[in-house]
Amino acid sequence: MTSLNDLPIRDDLRGREPYGAPQLDVPYALNTNENPYPPSEALVKAVGEAVMDVAGSLNRYPDRDAVALRDDLAAFLNRDTPGAGLTGRQVWAANGSNEIIQQILQAFGGPGRTALGFEPSYSMHPIITGVSGTRWIDAHRDEDFGLAPERAVAAVAEHRPDVVFLTSPNNPTGTALPLEAIEAVLAAAPGMVVVDEAYAEFRREGTPSALTLLPGNPRLIVTRTMSKAFAMAGTRLGYLAADPAVIDALLLVRLPYHLSAVTQAVARTAVAHEAELLGSVDVLRRERDDLVAWLRAQGLTVADSDANFVLFGRFADRRGVWRSMLDRGVLIREVGPPEWLRVSVGTPGEMAAFRTALKESL
Amino acid sequence: MTSLNDLPIRDDLRGREPYGAPQLDVPYALNTNENPYPPSEALVKAVGEAVMDVAGSLNRYPDRDAVALRDDLAAFLNRDTPGAGLTGRQVWAANGSNEIIQQILQAFGGPGRTALGFEPSYSMHPIITGVSGTRWIDAHRDEDFGLAPERAVAAVAEHRPDVVFLTSPNNPTGTALPLEAIEAVLAAAPGMVVVDEAYAEFRREGTPSALTLLPGNPRLIVTRTMSKAFAMAGTRLGYLAADPAVIDALLLVRLPYHLSAVTQAVARTAVAHEAELLGSVDVLRRERDDLVAWLRAQGLTVADSDANFVLFGRFADRRGVWRSMLDRGVLIREVGPPEWLRVSVGTPGEMAAFRTALKESL
Repeated sequence: MTSLNDLPIRDDLRGREPYGAPQLDVPYALNTNENPYPPSEALVKAVGEAVMDVAGSLNRYPDRDAVALRDDLAAFLNRDTPGAGLTGRQVWAANGSNEIIQQILQAFGGPGRTALGFEPSYSMHPIITGVSGTRWIDAHRDEDFGLAPERAVAAVAEHRPDVVFLTSPNNPTGTALPLEAIEAVLAAAPGMVVVDEAYAEFRREGTPSALTLLPGNPRLIVTRTMSKAFAMAGTRLGYLAADPAVIDALLLVRLPYHLSAVTQAVARTAVAHEAELLGSVDVLRRERDDLVAWLRAQGLTVADSDANFVLFGRFADRRGVWRSMLDRGVLIREVGPPEWLRVSVGTPGEMAAFRTALKESL
Repeated sequence: MTSLNDLPIRDDLRGREPYGAPQLDVPYALNTNENPYPPSEALVKAVGEAVMDVAGSLNRYPDRDAVALRDDLAAFLNRDTPGAGLTGRQVWAANGSNEIIQQILQAFGGPGRTALGFEPSYSMHPIITGVSGTRWIDAHRDEDFGLAPERAVAAVAEHRPDVVFLTSPNNPTGTALPLEAIEAVLAAAPGMVVVDEAYAEFRREGTPSALTLLPGNPRLIVTRTMSKAFAMAGTRLGYLAADPAVIDALLLVRLPYHLSAVTQAVARTAVAHEAELLGSVDVLRRERDDLVAWLRAQGLTVADSDANFVLFGRFADRRGVWRSMLDRGVLIREVGPPEWLRVSVGTPGEMAAFRTALKESL
């Protein structure tokens, strides 16, 4: 039998394992930061009808530029961040924010170029960077998972990266960045600055989005997703807001017709049902804050979180705790710095099961 | 206003134009080789129901490995090519065969590596090759758009490419390759050999698929799509068959959860309705053969076609002919070698309009 090592794969891929959390069938899946609240029956029906509306012409290619969807997403961002003043021309969409990130690296990174991030952060940033042939530089976060502007600026000045990734709120730590840190990096960076706001809708009141920095900053890209707060992980829809020239650049590397007619229709339906889908955000924020307080009451160390997950520790044998939780039907995530574990915020029932399992596991 | 040239894009992208045929609203769109027959009402309903079945859990991520869909596609290929004997473990799927090709180049190409093709062929092969940081080598097709095995082998021996692309039937010429040419290239190639069979279902009786060569050839990859014969261009589903080790390699570069739950559901529904969707293939083949005969009767030069399009010429001013056709509501494609034009095979009504417009334009 042929094995992977018998094939002429790229040298830098040899010995690698595929990325991805275990997909296990468990009673309590709290490992991929999904929104635990499923679509209502009314929304399920609306999605079905929207797909039937386009299904009669599925023999034809979709709108390659997804114009109507991008207009809808721009209108949503203007509601999310009053004053953003975006049009569809400043928005781009793809199959998940992973594809958005890949397109950014294909246009602005590549062989001979570098991308810099501050780890621990979203693990796909360095992976996609590597696959695109770009060299990855880890300038690491501060001890408290924050990012002091002067240290971030020093790292950018030292390495002069072609692309900088800032994640806010950060995954897997939950830490939101103040705008001053982003502005400082923007001023210092010679290339593109990507602010990954996958969890932005969960941020606490008073924390502004980097969308407010777009005017006058054509090298800033803010990425979003419908997989988290929008409760549409199964739809795979990521998007970004940036200067129209950035979108012109992405058009040079995007695969033509990358976004199916069905995906466009389902995503538009989701935006039209924003009130329902984002209706759970406040509930999840309260549940998160309760969870942080409870974990601290157990004597654990817990990172402040502006997201729908919580990083907690520290465990000399985190694998043992993870395994013990799984034995009790609760799947959490072994990710981030050693000795820490991440749990997604679920329904009250899921959180109760988590608490019981964790008490038994400690 | 910021322009693309003000941004720090990769040097090799400067001055490029986005790929893609004009998406114009015309009475007769014969430019992207779509199947002109739309899904039936029954199929539209089945697609809607399949999506509603998964819509209730769209807050969750999809099956990252698309196991059920890959099993279905393997079963289809075994019907398409009796004796292929494929399992889902030998099949991989993505958002269009463009993404399949990109994943192949990310795993087996990349900086410092080369991919070789024989042009004129599918224009996305060199484009995706370039975006992946791989160097493209054009060993060009023979004068009659065929590929003599000894010349192909000589090109492979000279350049020793990491990836070879063979397209059969070839786009935009329609030319099918005999298995001997593919076998000769496989024997000579030091790296991977990709046979792009996007139009395979339209091939003439007696022309075997490269699927029959898979046993014992772990460096062979055969790609297919649901966009052409399967009449599902709007669904964006490309796939491949290869040794399981090849799929292990692609798992290292694929974006996790690249294929949405909705795409998986719609594609499975399409495979389940194979009889309807592929029911038009014989009609389209007859229409194609009639079209070739008619074009030759007009005194034009026409390439033999095993696909659902025809390349014809030669026109000193092909742009003028293309424009004149468009003025008459018939959109065809300016593609391939100078002096040639490509027309997709449509319905009898569309073909009648094409004939009338072409007679007026010549």
